[in-house]
Amino acid sequence: MFEDINKTPATEISKLGEFGLIEHLTSGILPTQPSTIKGVGDDAAVAEKGNGMLSLYTTDMLVEGIHFDLMYTPYRHLGYKAAVVNFSDIYAMNGIPLQMLVSVAVSSKISVEALEEFYEGLLHACKTYHVDLVGGDTSSSLSGMIISITLIGEVKKEKIVYRNGAKETDLICVSGDLGAAYLGLQVLEREKKIFKETPSVQPDLSGFDYVLERQLKPEARKEIINWLNENNIQPTSMIDISDGLSSELNHICKQSEKGCQIYEEKIPIDIATETAASDFNLHPITCALNGGEDYELLFTASINDFEKLKQNPQISIIGHITEKNSGCHMLSKSGEYIPLTAQGWNSFK
Amino acid sequence: MFEDINKTPATEISKLGEFGLIEHLTSGILPTQPSTIKGVGDDAAVAEKGNGMLSLYTTDMLVEGIHFDLMYTPYRHLGYKAAVVNFSDIYAMNGIPLQMLVSVAVSSKISVEALEEFYEGLLHACKTYHVDLVGGDTSSSLSGMIISITLIGEVKKEKIVYRNGAKETDLICVSGDLGAAYLGLQVLEREKKIFKETPSVQPDLSGFDYVLERQLKPEARKEIINWLNENNIQPTSMIDISDGLSSELNHICKQSEKGCQIYEEKIPIDIATETAASDFNLHPITCALNGGEDYELLFTASINDFEKLKQNPQISIIGHITEKNSGCHMLSKSGEYIPLTAQGWNSFK
Repeated sequence: MFEDINKTPATEISKLGEFGLIEHLTSGILPTQPSTIKGVGDDAAVAEKGNGMLSLYTTDMLVEGIHFDLMYTPYRHLGYKAAVVNFSDIYAMNGIPLQMLVSVAVSSKISVEALEEFYEGLLHACKTYHVDLVGGDTSSSLSGMIISITLIGEVKKEKIVYRNGAKETDLICVSGDLGAAYLGLQVLEREKKIFKETPSVQPDLSGFDYVLERQLKPEARKEIINWLNENNIQPTSMIDISDGLSSELNHICKQSEKGCQIYEEKIPIDIATETAASDFNLHPITCALNGGEDYELLFTASINDFEKLKQNPQISIIGHITEKNSGCHMLSKSGEYIPLTAQGWNSFK
Repeated sequence: MFEDINKTPATEISKLGEFGLIEHLTSGILPTQPSTIKGVGDDAAVAEKGNGMLSLYTTDMLVEGIHFDLMYTPYRHLGYKAAVVNFSDIYAMNGIPLQMLVSVAVSSKISVEALEEFYEGLLHACKTYHVDLVGGDTSSSLSGMIISITLIGEVKKEKIVYRNGAKETDLICVSGDLGAAYLGLQVLEREKKIFKETPSVQPDLSGFDYVLERQLKPEARKEIINWLNENNIQPTSMIDISDGLSSELNHICKQSEKGCQIYEEKIPIDIATETAASDFNLHPITCALNGGEDYELLFTASINDFEKLKQNPQISIIGHITEKNSGCHMLSKSGEYIPLTAQGWNSFK
């Protein structure tokens, strides 16, 4: 024991990446409980609840220095965002979040007041989205803050939406606009760098309000789910955009065994995002495709719902589902077909 | 922003301790969802499930260097134990664990094979206790391994047992035996110290099999819950022993607004635990009262169940519940009344 207890052949995790690793570790797991309906592989796990309802479970771990930076993230916003990104996973199943469990590990250097602010953010999000904080765990860490959040939600059996239901000719839709959260992060990282080099210089965040808010205080698109339900639109597949449009579209197409075509000119990008992108010499469409953290909803719906969908200014129809062999492409404004890759964000790189 | 963004008056967390901190952060939280029945403050949170059933939710975070030491903990055992200690929380509500979510953060230094072993342990525990691993998250950490596990369970409405139902004259019972896991930890820590000083010396673990197994591969007391149900014994209160008998008894008495008296001679201690304790010049009763990590069940039951309870060799009746003002005491073998304090284990110290 001791020196060789855990010595094993060393395959580096970065070789598999985050999605590859989860797939690798959980492949072949078969449910044994009759109530388990869907395990790993969607925005949330699904279990039988009874009375025509399904339970939804999702969990997320956030690590300081990997997922957030306390140098420019107020604790209150951190708490709010940590809760909201999990609500978003429940909405992406067409469900409603109900209860939340939160575990936090912090070093002894953090003050009680800092943790209070973090909890204020959590509870503010809970109040806004009508979710109950019902449990959790607080412990110390050797370094840095680690947050783990679990959400429990529910959805009517006939209303649940998975990632794998997209059909050929279905419309591809996104809520809100894309790319802003990524640019908010770029602004914060730039000012952090300047501040570190010259602490006397005040950070210049003027003109970046929109992209900063999208990065620091995202919202989950509850009202989109409500609107779809009120208008009797049942999406055929859905996912929330946490890793960029390109990656999420690939998830839907892979799991639905379909291809897709989207149109650059249809992708919703706010004017503030375009301005910020030009400031960083970035193409705004790159931020929308690969940026991540927008927490908008990406869904597919039957073309029969076209007339209804185009009435909602918060929803953009950006393309359609094709057969599997045609792959995933974007038709650019200049008429080129650009393949959409599944890179996503890999915390192990 | 930046330099003073999170500067707040500094109250050290260690002043409150782990229980004090959770109480402080979650006091005054009122549920808003009609389905939420019980939030923070028991082994698991409770929600309405429908059809006469309740859902149970519990979560736990384990941090390398605080809760476990990879120098002497094989990954497979770590996975098994991480799962089992959460099953134990569901059993402590008289419930059955059904689904599990696991998040792990690891540094890029850890190999895929190591994580595979950890998952093997998790899945072995799931198979043994008929629980489905349905979701999770894998990400990188800046240093060390962090595990967060959430368990979802269920229990019939009329069968649920809280911490707060103990009545005067109720019998106080524990399953199995106590103190062994703590002594297992002492053996491992001693050999680690010797190994660090003189790596050529082989660690001497002979004769400590029982206490080592109790530390490295604990089990949750599913069969006790089954036996109680089969024999129509409904405990009036229950908790699992993770922080030592003394701390858990104080939780039950505080939440039930009662006192208690237990008898030293009745506390179940294995002969292997006594032998190991003498090796470390420790009193075995101290290990049982304050050691922790035994994951036995502590429960109270009506004196009407006395005849049934004493038939089960796996259950020891160690005392009875008294009125609040008489406090919590142990009558020692020498006839002294020793107050039982609620110290428990505080990871912030």
